[in-house]
Amino acid sequence: MSALLTDLYQLTMAAGYWCAGKARETATFELFVRRLPPNRNFLVAAGLQQAIDYLLNVRFAKEEIDYLRALPQFRNVDEGFWQALRDFRFTGDVFAVPEGTPLFPGEPILNLRAPLMEAQIPETFLLATIGFQSLVATKAARLVEASGGRAVVEFGTRRAHSPEAGVYAGRAAYIGGCTGTSNTLTGMLYGIPVFGTAAHSWIQSFPSELEAFERLHRLLGPATTYLIDTYDTLEGARRAASLGGPFWGVRLDSGNLVELSKAVRAILDDSGCHEAKIMATGDLNEYKILELCAAGAPIDAFGVGTELATSSDAPSHGAVYKMVEHSSGLGRRYTAKFSQDKSTLPGAKQVFRYPTHDVLARSHECFMPGCEALLRPVIIGGTPVGRQVTATESRQHARESIEKLPRKLLSLFECDPPYRVDLSDALLQLTEEVKGIPQ
Amino acid sequence: MSALLTDLYQLTMAAGYWCAGKARETATFELFVRRLPPNRNFLVAAGLQQAIDYLLNVRFAKEEIDYLRALPQFRNVDEGFWQALRDFRFTGDVFAVPEGTPLFPGEPILNLRAPLMEAQIPETFLLATIGFQSLVATKAARLVEASGGRAVVEFGTRRAHSPEAGVYAGRAAYIGGCTGTSNTLTGMLYGIPVFGTAAHSWIQSFPSELEAFERLHRLLGPATTYLIDTYDTLEGARRAASLGGPFWGVRLDSGNLVELSKAVRAILDDSGCHEAKIMATGDLNEYKILELCAAGAPIDAFGVGTELATSSDAPSHGAVYKMVEHSSGLGRRYTAKFSQDKSTLPGAKQVFRYPTHDVLARSHECFMPGCEALLRPVIIGGTPVGRQVTATESRQHARESIEKLPRKLLSLFECDPPYRVDLSDALLQLTEEVKGIPQ
Repeated sequence: MSALLTDLYQLTMAAGYWCAGKARETATFELFVRRLPPNRNFLVAAGLQQAIDYLLNVRFAKEEIDYLRALPQFRNVDEGFWQALRDFRFTGDVFAVPEGTPLFPGEPILNLRAPLMEAQIPETFLLATIGFQSLVATKAARLVEASGGRAVVEFGTRRAHSPEAGVYAGRAAYIGGCTGTSNTLTGMLYGIPVFGTAAHSWIQSFPSELEAFERLHRLLGPATTYLIDTYDTLEGARRAASLGGPFWGVRLDSGNLVELSKAVRAILDDSGCHEAKIMATGDLNEYKILELCAAGAPIDAFGVGTELATSSDAPSHGAVYKMVEHSSGLGRRYTAKFSQDKSTLPGAKQVFRYPTHDVLARSHECFMPGCEALLRPVIIGGTPVGRQVTATESRQHARESIEKLPRKLLSLFECDPPYRVDLSDALLQLTEEVKGIPQ
Repeated sequence: MSALLTDLYQLTMAAGYWCAGKARETATFELFVRRLPPNRNFLVAAGLQQAIDYLLNVRFAKEEIDYLRALPQFRNVDEGFWQALRDFRFTGDVFAVPEGTPLFPGEPILNLRAPLMEAQIPETFLLATIGFQSLVATKAARLVEASGGRAVVEFGTRRAHSPEAGVYAGRAAYIGGCTGTSNTLTGMLYGIPVFGTAAHSWIQSFPSELEAFERLHRLLGPATTYLIDTYDTLEGARRAASLGGPFWGVRLDSGNLVELSKAVRAILDDSGCHEAKIMATGDLNEYKILELCAAGAPIDAFGVGTELATSSDAPSHGAVYKMVEHSSGLGRRYTAKFSQDKSTLPGAKQVFRYPTHDVLARSHECFMPGCEALLRPVIIGGTPVGRQVTATESRQHARESIEKLPRKLLSLFECDPPYRVDLSDALLQLTEEVKGIPQ
């Protein structure tokens, strides 16, 4: 993986650390979210596997080093730096929460301790990978909650922020609770169920809707989902039912979904197709799904695209990556910021989760019976620790962890008061000590 | 490039076309935007180079075919289909507008004519690539307009929807008018200027701000930009000025930017650093930049991250890819949809741009003196046509094309009436004919 996929200032800082003789000083950085986006009561951590893959494989290729050497910013850098880039490997330690873990503001998704250069260069990649997948996993959890147990499938690659983002969106949506994705590459790469049958263009490419339906059924048999709104939805439902034989169901992509789903259900039932299901798609989000379910729309599954793959009501959540410790020849310093909007707490941390609240503690604190330590080692000395978990296991972990949260947090709207996150006595004491030191 | 990076239904439809003996029938699809997002008066087309690269290189790898063969959806497919996937190449024709072209709703960014299978499978990738880059290029054009000629640099990879999206965001932002990007890989891949010096963690890693500044200046010399808000912005400005020597300037990342920029300007001027510039960053967008400029803030350059790389006020714009023609053994049919919200016009199109308005016409119409035909051949018979343009040329094209638009369209707010897009007589006639045919 290209080490150039980062902000230039990470590389100028790396050069600066090298030139200042600081490249082997170590630092601990923590990645966390300062505030939750509107209407969210927690976020679901995701993207850690891609973060780990990156750290284990990040390298500078020869042509990348040549590119940097030609930039004016690196004019004053000595030869040793270029050799350091050629040899560049991540040799540090990473602790992280398992993917699918619900988290709250200020709680680290990961902390990373490494020589300054190795800790600085990955910042941009880690934030983009974990930030985006956590956004989508969180959105998926909301959609699944709104659907009250009905299936939600991720259909958003076409509106994702690049095709590659679509691949990751499918993965993160599955971890957050979706049943699967339409992205076929996501299915293959991560062992995730894939869904999809036909679009309006399929219907349009046949002289009649009926012939299009017949051909689809010949191909897909019991897996067939007829898209019935190309011309007239109710007529489409009658045509689908007239073909008989087992089929999965029908898909509605436009119109008043409450009225149409009820009318279509009646047509299917009257034709004896009691097993046939109804799927709804078309600019859906958690609020519309909630409304459809509340109105008793007999919809069995939802396909969600744009709003899920772009988390469109909250397309970012300001994840940050902040230095909390720094060790040099002068000893260890704990670093923090105390400005009003952008404060950070010093020192490497652990999150202890109790049934009713979390405690944000210093990383070396012993945990008490009845709580769980959320951050676990995933890379030690540049080497991965433990086995790789599958997306299905992460999805299961998300489901179980979300179920254990206080029920009110599952609301689609902000709950007041928010979830309780206490600071441990040791962390409070460290914070006071650091505040007392002139910066 | 993996042909599996698409929605599963594109592949089930491809199998269906094959099984129905329709795989060699040809279709024309058009990619366009139905409506502009709020406050936009045009969009800037981008992402075409990646779309072309994809079409020229899309393939099914052996393990990808094996994956599909094992899916239940493909149980009834005959062996010939798998051979067709092994041999899969894009052999069709593509006409597209040059990157950087401003466009209006309903105007095709590209049209693509190919055998049904080859036209269907790329839909998802093309929409995601062109959709996203056009969003970001459009946002960049707004930021540049708001800044009134000051430099705007793209800093958003960390908040982009995956690191890969960050690479494309940097490219698209540059085409839309940004001066450059912080994404170093974008710089190398596309020959785009890269910017960046140091973050707060750089300052924090030294015992004092002054030492951090000295070390940075030793590295970067006249390119140095001091980040001065880590502890106290005005004190930071004084320290930067005290170091003397030529430096690029200072960066403000927090606080009241109007007051701070004026105070910092005074400090720099009082110290004789008249050449030193002021850059502002920190959750900026086009509205905040407009306000800063209107308030006379002496800011020389803006760095914009989250809002640009995610187009956060409009993280999608509903680009669609619709079949407009279909040729089978039964002859050529023109396809369209006439539903209220989702209507499409039939037939392959051309856009003729006059100084005051556009005419959306049929693709074979001759154009009149005084207008420009926007769609040009880029792939014919699967082979690229013409030379590859650079990102810098596309940026230049965007700038020149935007300058030619009626001035009122450059407002950051919706103008009324919107830009005039007429339909040609031939297109109107075709539309009426198609409306008259029972579907």
